[in-house]
Amino acid sequence: MAKTPVLTPQAEDFPRWYQDLISKAELADNGPVRGTMVIRPYGYGLWERMQQDMDARIKETGTQNAYFPLLIPQSYLTKEADHVEGFAPELAVVTHGGGKELEEPAVVRPTSEMIVNASFAKWVQSYRDLPLLINQWANVVRWELRPRLFLRTTEFLWQEGHTAHATYEEARDFAARIHRHVYADFMENVLAMDVVLGRKTPKERFAGAINTLTLEGMMGDGKALQMGTSHELGQNFAKAFHTQYLSKDGKQELVWQTSWGSTTRMIGALVMMHGDDHGLRVPPRLAPVQVVVLAIKGDEAVLAKVREIGDALKAAGIRVRVDDRTDTPFGRRAVDWELKGVPVRVEVGPRDLENDTAMLARRIPGGKTSVAIGALTEVLPKILEEDQALLLAQARERRELRTSDVTTVDDAVEATAAGGWARIPWSDLGETGENALAEHGVSVRCLLAADGSVPDSDDAPGNVAVVARAY
Amino acid sequence: MAKTPVLTPQAEDFPRWYQDLISKAELADNGPVRGTMVIRPYGYGLWERMQQDMDARIKETGTQNAYFPLLIPQSYLTKEADHVEGFAPELAVVTHGGGKELEEPAVVRPTSEMIVNASFAKWVQSYRDLPLLINQWANVVRWELRPRLFLRTTEFLWQEGHTAHATYEEARDFAARIHRHVYADFMENVLAMDVVLGRKTPKERFAGAINTLTLEGMMGDGKALQMGTSHELGQNFAKAFHTQYLSKDGKQELVWQTSWGSTTRMIGALVMMHGDDHGLRVPPRLAPVQVVVLAIKGDEAVLAKVREIGDALKAAGIRVRVDDRTDTPFGRRAVDWELKGVPVRVEVGPRDLENDTAMLARRIPGGKTSVAIGALTEVLPKILEEDQALLLAQARERRELRTSDVTTVDDAVEATAAGGWARIPWSDLGETGENALAEHGVSVRCLLAADGSVPDSDDAPGNVAVVARAY
Repeated sequence: MAKTPVLTPQAEDFPRWYQDLISKAELADNGPVRGTMVIRPYGYGLWERMQQDMDARIKETGTQNAYFPLLIPQSYLTKEADHVEGFAPELAVVTHGGGKELEEPAVVRPTSEMIVNASFAKWVQSYRDLPLLINQWANVVRWELRPRLFLRTTEFLWQEGHTAHATYEEARDFAARIHRHVYADFMENVLAMDVVLGRKTPKERFAGAINTLTLEGMMGDGKALQMGTSHELGQNFAKAFHTQYLSKDGKQELVWQTSWGSTTRMIGALVMMHGDDHGLRVPPRLAPVQVVVLAIKGDEAVLAKVREIGDALKAAGIRVRVDDRTDTPFGRRAVDWELKGVPVRVEVGPRDLENDTAMLARRIPGGKTSVAIGALTEVLPKILEEDQALLLAQARERRELRTSDVTTVDDAVEATAAGGWARIPWSDLGETGENALAEHGVSVRCLLAADGSVPDSDDAPGNVAVVARAY
Repeated sequence: MAKTPVLTPQAEDFPRWYQDLISKAELADNGPVRGTMVIRPYGYGLWERMQQDMDARIKETGTQNAYFPLLIPQSYLTKEADHVEGFAPELAVVTHGGGKELEEPAVVRPTSEMIVNASFAKWVQSYRDLPLLINQWANVVRWELRPRLFLRTTEFLWQEGHTAHATYEEARDFAARIHRHVYADFMENVLAMDVVLGRKTPKERFAGAINTLTLEGMMGDGKALQMGTSHELGQNFAKAFHTQYLSKDGKQELVWQTSWGSTTRMIGALVMMHGDDHGLRVPPRLAPVQVVVLAIKGDEAVLAKVREIGDALKAAGIRVRVDDRTDTPFGRRAVDWELKGVPVRVEVGPRDLENDTAMLARRIPGGKTSVAIGALTEVLPKILEEDQALLLAQARERRELRTSDVTTVDDAVEATAAGGWARIPWSDLGETGENALAEHGVSVRCLLAADGSVPDSDDAPGNVAVVARAY
């Protein structure tokens, strides 16, 4: 008798697999208002770990957290022409408050550049007030016509950084610092994600930016997902809000700004980059639960032993959960932890006790081995680091294998249709080629310099476009 | 020449003093949409410290964090009759999304009982799923006609806990546990706040609750502020949403629920309970900066010394900030740290270096003393603990001094008009007396049992009402 798979296999229907996983691993549910989501405790636990790590990295740059209002006067949105054009179709509008129609409707923030600048214009007076480095953790709303949990939701959670600097160079360098030393380092070292760092083409830039830096990841189906962006805003918002400072020379100067964001979409990326047909695989450095110790049966000696192991692992600095819910069948619990992607299961039954061993099941490479209970605190930290590295290596290998070098739009379309990315010299593609790709649902994810680094300009000689279908 | 006070003195105009302080200590600004606020980095730093400490206490009860949508279908609000009546006048309504009028308007959550129950009804199937203990950190919107920063704002930040239990007793005990072992312990031990724990009268209960437990604090002007509440919801919401479970006996039973919240209003309370004419006084256990080390002059030796002291204090586990911004006059910086309420200033100038001493200025009791630099790491932790205790003692003493025992409505009105609280036997007051007090702007803050504990019922013999004017 063939075992019914818990999830639709990836190869059969990737979007369906994704939905199944999000639901069965208890990461999130759809909310009642179209496009909204309920983030369940296990999914939110992943977000909390992401927040905690990123928050520390953001603070290391000298940035401080603050909080700006959810509701923005509708008139503010119109102050920067590109910005309003970019966001107008996605706005949620509050027309009634306290039982009355409002004199001026308020929009629910789709992002906070506008309302932040209203404050920055007051707070920045002198060069002594610069750089002003602010971040906020908040919810934003962008109306979604084709919502998908974590990837495109009408409401999502994020951090958004907003900074003001005295010079163009300082702003440019700060945006690059966030891009590489906050976002990329976090994604590679904690999320074990393979990300390509590049700059967006003018067509793909943030509404109101002069440059957008991006991190792009390849998902299990070969499509791309934008993982985070860091923008140079130039003086566009400073002009709209008169955000200026008195320089050392006694002149009024407009500030140079940046903004940068990363969102709960990273949870969706985690699923699609590391997940397999058995469920999620959570990188050990992120995992809220790194090791689960399971009692196979509700036998007194077994229960005492799993608790003892749990205490020992906790004392060794491992994030551990003891699963002694023996009124639920062992097999069901094992499948559930597999779905949730906990890196290692330590399974203990009456037979194991006789030999003072436990069965160790590794979620990331797969496979089971018997290990002496006394050796666990020594063995597990090594395994967790090994598996962390393995996830990143697997993701990187997939991206490299599935990326082709091409020189024509037709070949680029063919490569991406087969579930991969293509690299094409920007001199062969250009804006005409970019528009031609768009007709096939393919976009330029980013531009790279000839040596693979982030280019200094859109049209630097040797620039290469990375093109893909994207979420 | 008399020195112009930095703040309006409390005795002259308490509300004005409050506004001055919030603004000059850079805690918050008004947002552009009426009643909204921008929480500035120093104010948000206080909130982050509160969150961190409370979150750990909440998790110790077995509660997990999750996230529910901001937008709720308008129809949901009408499912529980008392609840909709309580919140209808305060709702912000989204009528347009994505450029179109919505088929059903959505309200911005004023609280999440409704949307949480929509999920609980799906998640709870069996007695094995109980208790279900969920918390979320979120923003909520309640339209405010008379906004005041932190105290009453159209949008505020909070944590809201929502739990479901198999029995009435378990829910009752859980609500009481949050009331005493999360809220009261945190407020007394970290915020150094004197709080009175009691139960609300039916008139003052949360819309939809069968019992509301409250913590009430006396502010510097003798008025009361509700600091947090913990509600027993009975089965009211369970009935509205059919939130039920299969019991061990195989019967479908409705769950018993609680909800509980505490908000950014605690920052306002901190200001009004501990502030004085010189500014805020932050309790050391909460303070993001416990000690600031100030260089009086920009002399090389002084700058080297303040950095050395900063490193030593940091190594000793003190949250320290080095202020070496000597391009700003020392006096201005000292006043600014006083306004912000940093518990201790360590001031170092060229003359102090000669004697290897520093001037130590204590914000909480006031006063300055010279201390050997080598003794700082030993002296400061003791001072910080002393000052923590002192703040609580001062607040408690004020409340005791300004509370009168009375037996008539007239005497209660007189006592509260003079800037204090009154205690009056509930048997002398009753609902008629409560309504009479309301005509004078006085409310029953809570009921206490004869021995000062939290009473088990509204009409237990010996119950005493604590009455006051309130924020």
